[in-house]
Amino acid sequence: MARETWVGVDVGGTKVLAVRVSADGEVEAMATRPMPGRNADESAVEDAVELAARDVYDDQEPVALGISAAGLVDGAGERYLFGAHLPWRNAPVRDRIAERTGLVVVLDNDANCAAHAELVVGAGQGADSMLMITIGTGIGGALVLGGRVVRGAHGLAGEFGHMQVVPDGLACECGLSGCWEQYCSGRALERVTRVALGRHLDGPEVAAMAFAGDEVARQAFASIGTWLGVGVAGLVSAFDPQLVVVGGGVSAVGDLLLAPARAALADSLQGTAYRPVPPLVPARSGPEAGAVGAALLARDRR
Amino acid sequence: MARETWVGVDVGGTKVLAVRVSADGEVEAMATRPMPGRNADESAVEDAVELAARDVYDDQEPVALGISAAGLVDGAGERYLFGAHLPWRNAPVRDRIAERTGLVVVLDNDANCAAHAELVVGAGQGADSMLMITIGTGIGGALVLGGRVVRGAHGLAGEFGHMQVVPDGLACECGLSGCWEQYCSGRALERVTRVALGRHLDGPEVAAMAFAGDEVARQAFASIGTWLGVGVAGLVSAFDPQLVVVGGGVSAVGDLLLAPARAALADSLQGTAYRPVPPLVPARSGPEAGAVGAALLARDRR
Repeated sequence: MARETWVGVDVGGTKVLAVRVSADGEVEAMATRPMPGRNADESAVEDAVELAARDVYDDQEPVALGISAAGLVDGAGERYLFGAHLPWRNAPVRDRIAERTGLVVVLDNDANCAAHAELVVGAGQGADSMLMITIGTGIGGALVLGGRVVRGAHGLAGEFGHMQVVPDGLACECGLSGCWEQYCSGRALERVTRVALGRHLDGPEVAAMAFAGDEVARQAFASIGTWLGVGVAGLVSAFDPQLVVVGGGVSAVGDLLLAPARAALADSLQGTAYRPVPPLVPARSGPEAGAVGAALLARDRR
Repeated sequence: MARETWVGVDVGGTKVLAVRVSADGEVEAMATRPMPGRNADESAVEDAVELAARDVYDDQEPVALGISAAGLVDGAGERYLFGAHLPWRNAPVRDRIAERTGLVVVLDNDANCAAHAELVVGAGQGADSMLMITIGTGIGGALVLGGRVVRGAHGLAGEFGHMQVVPDGLACECGLSGCWEQYCSGRALERVTRVALGRHLDGPEVAAMAFAGDEVARQAFASIGTWLGVGVAGLVSAFDPQLVVVGGGVSAVGDLLLAPARAALADSLQGTAYRPVPPLVPARSGPEAGAVGAALLARDRR
């Protein structure tokens, strides 16, 4: 009998990332393709998803394919409804990719996928309640209660990135203004750096400078980290979770982001003399958490 | 055999309100006592609780007593931990009131009590998921999932009032700044009116003026109503509930508050062309929801 594998594809604002996992959840292969951009044709995104997926196929086809996407996915896991960074609008993504690949496909929001990965193989193993925040181009989120991802009445729970944190604040791609992800995301990191330096650097460049000790770059991470802690404090007031797990591409810098976030969380939470502050920890499945979680959802739902 | 009744006492920032309910949840009597203030002795608050409770006793003692309190109550329902408007600090309120009255006592956060009332006898009957917001001196909140109030890892879920909505905003009694309840509460209503008129009016006076058509008073309700909608939009993004129920003393004005809240909710939610906006409805158990819910919790837990 053939060895079984599952493929997960994470569709983000800047890239499409695919992984292949084994039956025990080990990541065996990884590939990325560029994202065509939010004004591209929907089919161009589907091309990128299919190509990235096939990049990680073994000599056997995978058993099933999971798709993790930044934005609103319907409760049935059939349609991508809306998102600030992707061109899909009310698009039957699950069936389109199933038709292209001939595989069983599952579709979920990226942060829901990341939370599933963390619960199964990551920092949230055994957790009853957990807040998951993914920081990439924007912010994704998921809420775990009773050991499961809360999907909400319409499948839309966990869309933390578009909570307003600044009245009449920065305009957001979603059409609103002052959204949390305008202050705490890869895009925000780039904006803060651009304002300070007068030139554009992308996120990995800012990270490299920060690790080399550059003070402007470190302050840029401190800025988005502080906003991370402020927003998490609000969500901790609302949910009172056991722990907070932070994933997504930007989280790969670790304490450059998480140390200021922990300080702001403790400073922004009511009554900390009388209540515990939950630990804020990095996602163990790393920036690939969405893709890994999508693959594990495909595995666990077959 | 004697007729059975239950008493609920709601301890808020400005008054202590007691109700007596029958076995089928009907409110049979109501009484209020003034709150001694947040700098009073803890025992002065307990005096007010006991006096208000005894004011509504039938000729028989009630079967049990429920206490609803604005602020943080521990997960075991034994201690009042901390709150901006009450003097109790890590106080064993359940046992103190049990000793004073000789009754079985249950203790919970005011908005958790209000949510229980709405689920059992109010606007949330049959709801699987619901967001409960109570607007009194400050903001209380509760989250219902799976038909039950979510208590959180430490019993502290639903503390929405101290989520930051304005960076470096108005100072809050809790020690933080920019908290939601500084912009959307009875206190906020009084502040907005005071700034506009140059003199102090209390909430009921502002309400009377608004009902009489006074434009300043109507604008004051529109201001806190708009902030209600903005904050609710953030929580709807996070939880995706079936409905939003608004209770607490200030909610007694109805659409003066709720109409601007509904408009701001629809304007502040991401992707409303692709997602439903949940109904925002008044609590059916009215401003007494906390006290009624506390009595029903005492009934349902005996």
